[in-house]
Amino acid sequence: MAADIEFFFDFSSPYAYFASTQVDALAARHGRKVQWRPILLGVVFRSTGAAPLTAVPIKGDYARHDFKRTARLHGIDFNLPDPFPIPTQAAARAMLWTRASHGDAQAIALAKALFRAYFVDNLDISAPESVVKVAVATGLDAQQVAAGLDSAAVRAELKAGTDEAMQRGVCGAPFLIVDGEPWWGFDRFGQVEDFLSSQQRAQAAPAGKA
Amino acid sequence: MAADIEFFFDFSSPYAYFASTQVDALAARHGRKVQWRPILLGVVFRSTGAAPLTAVPIKGDYARHDFKRTARLHGIDFNLPDPFPIPTQAAARAMLWTRASHGDAQAIALAKALFRAYFVDNLDISAPESVVKVAVATGLDAQQVAAGLDSAAVRAELKAGTDEAMQRGVCGAPFLIVDGEPWWGFDRFGQVEDFLSSQQRAQAAPAGKA
Repeated sequence: MAADIEFFFDFSSPYAYFASTQVDALAARHGRKVQWRPILLGVVFRSTGAAPLTAVPIKGDYARHDFKRTARLHGIDFNLPDPFPIPTQAAARAMLWTRASHGDAQAIALAKALFRAYFVDNLDISAPESVVKVAVATGLDAQQVAAGLDSAAVRAELKAGTDEAMQRGVCGAPFLIVDGEPWWGFDRFGQVEDFLSSQQRAQAAPAGKA
Repeated sequence: MAADIEFFFDFSSPYAYFASTQVDALAARHGRKVQWRPILLGVVFRSTGAAPLTAVPIKGDYARHDFKRTARLHGIDFNLPDPFPIPTQAAARAMLWTRASHGDAQAIALAKALFRAYFVDNLDISAPESVVKVAVATGLDAQQVAAGLDSAAVRAELKAGTDEAMQRGVCGAPFLIVDGEPWWGFDRFGQVEDFLSSQQRAQAAPAGKA
């Protein structure tokens, strides 16, 4: 059985949003599943010295242009939200709580709904109330989510997950780890696809006859 | 006649080196020529706050891995040089002087030889003497190149070229501008190829019958 693909993301990254619309299908084409792992890019940036793309002189203009172009080229709904970027603790914690309490499928559905709320409907999901609103629309209970995303266990899990990601070399988002191989950026999904194909061929080869 | 592709690069960027091995062929497939435009990435970095990739925590390890992987995937000769990165004023000025004195073809041949000297043969081309050595191997005169790369006119041209690039949004290297459309990164050459194809189809459509 081929290992899961690890998908590290922050809910405030446009490229991670683009990735979120394609990563499950990419994995499925190669008989894989995806582990969705929310992290806090702000914490990573404190280690790498990076800043939000749109805040960087020269690069900011390019990034805004490239966000829209990338969405258009891939046929993905997208509006650059305002405010941007935003803190994403509430969204990430809500996803982790949902996984623990309702399982992976429900958590991934929530993650996709949160990305869409922010990058299509311009809902500021930095506010816990907004996160709860989105969660309710995916069938979750408002009070349970509100309490869950504020729990100490979930806070600790997000912190530990972000730290572990950095220790394993996650330097930005989206970031995939596939059979130990790291890939940073939505624009590398073509390479990931080729890599998955080659791993599949290697696995299909009869033992001892590589 | 379709406009030239502008190719902005710094001689110390591995991704620009990779681009330099493919950009002429990419352009030729679509009936285009390439304007090779050396810039100083260090000057750009002072505006964007960026640092050499390999010097950045976490990102540095990823970059070193990705340099080698990219070279392997594209079948490009590559050794990460030591020292890396290096100042590239001498190399850039030598190229500009060669263009002014011997024309574009000779200047591009020199640029390719300089990239190769640094990223394949591990020659530290920050030293003007090393640049002269490479230039001589491409058929240029040692004394003329040595004097040329040190001339005030060429110094001013490199400074002005770098400033103009930044004003036009060049935020890194390699950076292509194609019919006004900006592309940053060797990993976007696939998108550039698609864009060139669509521009070619648009141009081939009979006037008034788009």
